[in-house]
Amino acid sequence: MNIKELKSKYDDYYKSLKGFTVVLSILNFDCNTIAPKKSLEEKAELTSSVFEEYAKLSTSVEYQEVINELYKNKDKLDENYKRIAVLKKKELDHDKAIPLDMRKEYNILLRKSFLAWRDAKQNNDWKSFEPFLEKIVDYQRKIAQLWGPIQGSLYNTLLDSFEEGNTTEKLDVFFNSLKETIIPLLHKIQQKNFKFNDKFITAKVSHNKQIKLAKYLLKINGFDLSRGCLAETEHPFTDGITPNDARITTHIYENLFLSNVYSVIHEGGHAIYEQNLSNKLIDDLRNAPSMAWHESQSKFYENIIGKCPEYINLISKKINSILPKEFKNKTTPEQLYLAVNNVQTSLVRTEADELTYSLHVIIRYELEKKLINGELEVKDLPVAWNKLYKEYLGIEVKSNKEGVLQDSHWSSGSFGYFPSYALGNAIGAQILNTMMKDFDVFEAVNENKIKQKIGKWLKDNVYIYGAKYSPNELVLKVTGEELNTKYFTDYLVKKFTKIYNL
Amino acid sequence: MNIKELKSKYDDYYKSLKGFTVVLSILNFDCNTIAPKKSLEEKAELTSSVFEEYAKLSTSVEYQEVINELYKNKDKLDENYKRIAVLKKKELDHDKAIPLDMRKEYNILLRKSFLAWRDAKQNNDWKSFEPFLEKIVDYQRKIAQLWGPIQGSLYNTLLDSFEEGNTTEKLDVFFNSLKETIIPLLHKIQQKNFKFNDKFITAKVSHNKQIKLAKYLLKINGFDLSRGCLAETEHPFTDGITPNDARITTHIYENLFLSNVYSVIHEGGHAIYEQNLSNKLIDDLRNAPSMAWHESQSKFYENIIGKCPEYINLISKKINSILPKEFKNKTTPEQLYLAVNNVQTSLVRTEADELTYSLHVIIRYELEKKLINGELEVKDLPVAWNKLYKEYLGIEVKSNKEGVLQDSHWSSGSFGYFPSYALGNAIGAQILNTMMKDFDVFEAVNENKIKQKIGKWLKDNVYIYGAKYSPNELVLKVTGEELNTKYFTDYLVKKFTKIYNL
Repeated sequence: MNIKELKSKYDDYYKSLKGFTVVLSILNFDCNTIAPKKSLEEKAELTSSVFEEYAKLSTSVEYQEVINELYKNKDKLDENYKRIAVLKKKELDHDKAIPLDMRKEYNILLRKSFLAWRDAKQNNDWKSFEPFLEKIVDYQRKIAQLWGPIQGSLYNTLLDSFEEGNTTEKLDVFFNSLKETIIPLLHKIQQKNFKFNDKFITAKVSHNKQIKLAKYLLKINGFDLSRGCLAETEHPFTDGITPNDARITTHIYENLFLSNVYSVIHEGGHAIYEQNLSNKLIDDLRNAPSMAWHESQSKFYENIIGKCPEYINLISKKINSILPKEFKNKTTPEQLYLAVNNVQTSLVRTEADELTYSLHVIIRYELEKKLINGELEVKDLPVAWNKLYKEYLGIEVKSNKEGVLQDSHWSSGSFGYFPSYALGNAIGAQILNTMMKDFDVFEAVNENKIKQKIGKWLKDNVYIYGAKYSPNELVLKVTGEELNTKYFTDYLVKKFTKIYNL
Repeated sequence: MNIKELKSKYDDYYKSLKGFTVVLSILNFDCNTIAPKKSLEEKAELTSSVFEEYAKLSTSVEYQEVINELYKNKDKLDENYKRIAVLKKKELDHDKAIPLDMRKEYNILLRKSFLAWRDAKQNNDWKSFEPFLEKIVDYQRKIAQLWGPIQGSLYNTLLDSFEEGNTTEKLDVFFNSLKETIIPLLHKIQQKNFKFNDKFITAKVSHNKQIKLAKYLLKINGFDLSRGCLAETEHPFTDGITPNDARITTHIYENLFLSNVYSVIHEGGHAIYEQNLSNKLIDDLRNAPSMAWHESQSKFYENIIGKCPEYINLISKKINSILPKEFKNKTTPEQLYLAVNNVQTSLVRTEADELTYSLHVIIRYELEKKLINGELEVKDLPVAWNKLYKEYLGIEVKSNKEGVLQDSHWSSGSFGYFPSYALGNAIGAQILNTMMKDFDVFEAVNENKIKQKIGKWLKDNVYIYGAKYSPNELVLKVTGEELNTKYFTDYLVKKFTKIYNL
């Protein structure tokens, strides 16, 4: 095959596979939103044949040949196909490395584990989940072994699969500097013993009003509702299914409207990325280069924009309008600002404030690193978890439900993903620094020009590249320098020093 | 292969194919409910590969062999597999009869035609749709030719594909007796010049309240919301996706709450059928034997139950509670009963009353029979349509939007389907007659025991058989006699004579 034929062969395969990813994404979205819970097991069973067809197609001998040939000839390809060749070769090598039987068994295990985790969390019953997690950790170690350890570490291999080029060596430096910044800052804040006037945050706001509020926020942030949708789920997520279909989900608690507010702003950030990836990109590179990059956008909207004074000012009137009588038009922007930036040590990552959030991630990072590298056993995990919460956050974990069982990640085999959240914060802060050289970001928020100025800048300077570059290359491309985590620590220090008058 | 191997081979194929039908049903449901309109075209394009894989699988040489072998050995099979062999052989013969290229072209045409119809209806622009419909009719005629005419008629072939054993000969008799019953009855009713006190039917009822009402109606009718769901769409439909996932859709008009009420009761009837098909049936026969049978249940709940005085009595309090002040607690069950049974000639089938509804179906039947049998050209369709509306209903069709363009069926190639609606009514009335021998159906409604008595009877006497028998055999099995359309005409005469005091 010549290069042209090879590319066209690849394109055909891409098209076939893409069809499957679209329908399977919709199946997943459906199962997590509208599908009756009672149908989930039978549906997993009934649809397994489609997953198998997809796996067959994506690992067929012919497809493997196409990818191997593309990779062999990568230096003769234009930069798009070259990048694709590199990415697909890695994916293929990963797939091929795992024997089919093992993959099948593992998929069955993951399906059962997820349900076991859900029940274990509900019943606060760690012991019922422990044997599942033990098996998953075993599989993850075996998989990393088959993929090949990086710099002698199995965990590095898993990290690299989520974030090309990421290693424990880099993360240890980053997380140490984060700990050294956050923990002392947290202690100083705690000593201040600040009292907030924030009773309104538990005021009852109806489901209906919260949905309207969510749509309002999405609109001012620049999410195009005619090219996406908003649905409800247990654990909010975003899915960019096709170019004109980026979906956001949220969870409404009638007595905690801010949970919905920041969930929607966060997921909206992901979806704005998806909606604004350049049309000029070839479809296969119409993605973020990594999950940390994706998180950089959701966290940017959630924290840097969504929790700055100018944004609070902007939405304060709307928030007041949906509060019950006792608080309506009586809640000042200052009160709201302090409430959303109220630093307090807490047990649950997803409800943590911007400052302590990273500590939750670091705890998970340190534990999963040890689990995968064989330095910690699953049975000792709850004790180790609780110990780190005591050490970094100074709090006692009273139940595994709010402790080691809180996140779904491990139950679905995602080891090495948690650091993406923290890296996303670091990328976001570095982007802010670059953006500020071009215009005053917070003034743009103040003018209600989030879409016109901030969104446009991100589109022109970030989304335009899709997945053409590696995560690290993109940082360099966008900001002109390597990832420098100091931007994030500086940002935190400046922000919280000011709020708490330290 | 021996019989056991053959059955197991078939089961494997069934499982693979079923996975595809489940994910493709969910894709379809998604496209018709939550998916952004702007994403529909790209999604159709992107997912076409999955439809192709499905088609490949369902027409593979090996699969054909399995079906042919099963069919050859059908007399050695148990009754379940025997029935499957007969049904699948027919399906396969139909599939095989159409060359692959033709099928592909036709699918593309149908996709485009549906969009063309949607736009044409919106813009009241028949001419833009005419060339599409011409091509569809051509294809339908070619397909019927390839399948083989039945008793010399191409239209019979299409009828039979929806309703095994159905022919124009039978339908002509049925529809003539319907016309002879309904048209004189209609004239008598019109002469009475009855005035209704039904201003409340256009009262504004909020979206929220209508959704709550819909769920209330579904509950009293016996639909299990924990094994299904309710969503919104343009043109309501039901989909029984898996045993524990039967989905209903509705369309809410804030100024026409009864439209939602009867749409939900109708779709609920379909879904109750799906939910209560016996678990003991093998999955492949866990279906209705035909669309007329499916319609018999939706129409039974919609009309026989949903529009009887006892049902109106039952729901009247709830209806009153959601009406605006002016009407709240002032609308009597009698007024409500007369309003839902208000006979008036109208242009739109889906909004027609129970009496005139059949005339709408008959008009479509007569026209499509002529189109397929080559006695009417597409270009002459609007004139022919309008002529029949004048003749049977006595009304002028002023726009094609409310005339020949109103239904989506023809745009998606469904010729021969419309009679199912009328046959469903006939089956429903015959079932009512049988059920009344066992207990007083309307007394059961009066006692709010729809699920416990009527639902249970249908489950035990109808749903238990799934698709094990042909449509006609099932009529015999359930009611002890062949389909006798007199039950339906008698029912209509009795009901409307009483209401209008004729």
